[in-house]
Amino acid sequence: MELLIGFDIGGTNLKTGLFDKQLNLLVKDNRPNPTDLSADSMVEHIVRCGKDILAQNGYSAKDLSAVGIGCPGAIDLKNGVVRAAPNLPFRNLPLRDMVSRKLSVPAVLENDANAAAWGEFVVGAAKGVSDMVFFTLGTGIGGGVVCDGKLIRGFAGEAGELGHIIIYPDSDRLCGCGQRGCAEAHASANSTAAIANERLAKGADSSLGQIFRKKGQVSCKDVFEHAKKGDAPAMDVVDGTTKALGLLCVNMLHVTQPQRIVFAGGMIAAGDFLLNKIRQQFDKYIWTMKKENLEICFAALGEDAGIYGAASLSCDLL
Amino acid sequence: MELLIGFDIGGTNLKTGLFDKQLNLLVKDNRPNPTDLSADSMVEHIVRCGKDILAQNGYSAKDLSAVGIGCPGAIDLKNGVVRAAPNLPFRNLPLRDMVSRKLSVPAVLENDANAAAWGEFVVGAAKGVSDMVFFTLGTGIGGGVVCDGKLIRGFAGEAGELGHIIIYPDSDRLCGCGQRGCAEAHASANSTAAIANERLAKGADSSLGQIFRKKGQVSCKDVFEHAKKGDAPAMDVVDGTTKALGLLCVNMLHVTQPQRIVFAGGMIAAGDFLLNKIRQQFDKYIWTMKKENLEICFAALGEDAGIYGAASLSCDLL
Repeated sequence: MELLIGFDIGGTNLKTGLFDKQLNLLVKDNRPNPTDLSADSMVEHIVRCGKDILAQNGYSAKDLSAVGIGCPGAIDLKNGVVRAAPNLPFRNLPLRDMVSRKLSVPAVLENDANAAAWGEFVVGAAKGVSDMVFFTLGTGIGGGVVCDGKLIRGFAGEAGELGHIIIYPDSDRLCGCGQRGCAEAHASANSTAAIANERLAKGADSSLGQIFRKKGQVSCKDVFEHAKKGDAPAMDVVDGTTKALGLLCVNMLHVTQPQRIVFAGGMIAAGDFLLNKIRQQFDKYIWTMKKENLEICFAALGEDAGIYGAASLSCDLL
Repeated sequence: MELLIGFDIGGTNLKTGLFDKQLNLLVKDNRPNPTDLSADSMVEHIVRCGKDILAQNGYSAKDLSAVGIGCPGAIDLKNGVVRAAPNLPFRNLPLRDMVSRKLSVPAVLENDANAAAWGEFVVGAAKGVSDMVFFTLGTGIGGGVVCDGKLIRGFAGEAGELGHIIIYPDSDRLCGCGQRGCAEAHASANSTAAIANERLAKGADSSLGQIFRKKGQVSCKDVFEHAKKGDAPAMDVVDGTTKALGLLCVNMLHVTQPQRIVFAGGMIAAGDFLLNKIRQQFDKYIWTMKKENLEICFAALGEDAGIYGAASLSCDLL
């Protein structure tokens, strides 16, 4: 057999997917990261999960042809090095070659959002288009850009930081990156919850406010649930979030003119209610000069986008 | 001889450049567009200027190998059609094939800002880098994006509309495109003059105000001249313009991570005063999470960027 493995490194878990060369997912695994999270233990963990997924499914090391690794943070693609990763103890770690050596196959290392974008591009919601933009809405807002079938990486592998597009330059919302008014500071799942909590602390009377007073805080999920039921303060927060996301779509249309923009991440559990709001905000802010036929949709692979993308990128090594 | 011609169609003039295959500019020409500006007369004008630049320099039609045409507006690259062009009477005009047939050589048609960006990329201010972003500051703000050595065209050839990135979503400045708060509505040469004139009409006392009262209006050039001399209202306008340009640089860094951002167009006559202001604004708004080494510079080819780029694109036809 010629098999591929896609790894998707997260802040808390490692996802592993075993694929055939036609990129059919044979089996997948999801294990918590080691508690003593060091660079060495993380490399051991990746190698262990790779060996296990082969052995537990009746394959041997010889069946493996290549692996792809998606990792958060700043990646030096050419040298396969993690320069720095938020929430992970990696600094200038030559992760690609360490994993490659221990599994005795060629490996490729890519930023996790880029890998997920690539997964959606190759087999997911943007299959069949040449130009797409990908946003993942979670703790922050990650991004990935594909132009004419190629992943845009930037001169040092750090393109696609789409959550840090500034949409409100004079905002008082400080982003973790040090900028003010980033999309991420207004429209990630965490920011959506934070904005709701700030407002509810001032005591708005509403069904969402009751949750706040009961639990001490509300989640992004709470905000969307109560907005769907017509709660006005919740709807105001959703309007702010979706306005920011609509503006991101407008701006990305003007920069790379994607045919499709794909949203992924925890927030898309809010479903069509969210998707329709983003589309409405896009329609509100896009130019009137000519009609745009941008397709805005949700990801198709869910949590598996990262392992699909990483495995697909490893195909280039064959 | 194997020669190339690059055409750069403008709202008022047609620039023509004759190049050898190594992209050395042999001779150039600049003639006003026909007064009865129709699609047919424009095509005739292009063909005439092409034939003349050959004949007047001792070459025959047989010396010509290919031509490139830069044209404002929405271009269908694949089919060589001008879908629509502002200030020009072109609607769904198969310009590429009309010119190609009449000059009996292969032709390529590209958006004018993309052509100029490509000129700067190949032989100008971004020569030697792989990833660049190009802005031209004139009546509007045009743009061009090169990633990993490839011009980004978008799925329908309309990428790089960088002037229409929205930087102030709640602005009351309406752009010609129908959006509010576009970079173009805040930072083009025309917008810079318009903002100054609006403020001066309210009667600010300053050296720029004296020009306004004398001439009835000020130009972008006036604004920069008086700002350089320390005039406070002029400086306020320049701060607004350069803040918008700095924000554009921040946002484009996050999207495609260029190594170099190149500014062109009439406004760059303001020189280092403008360039330093843009750099300062970039430094003010960029994240603090890590140090960025983005190079922000001015175009090197001046008004010739378009003919260089168009000629260079035609090389692909040989």
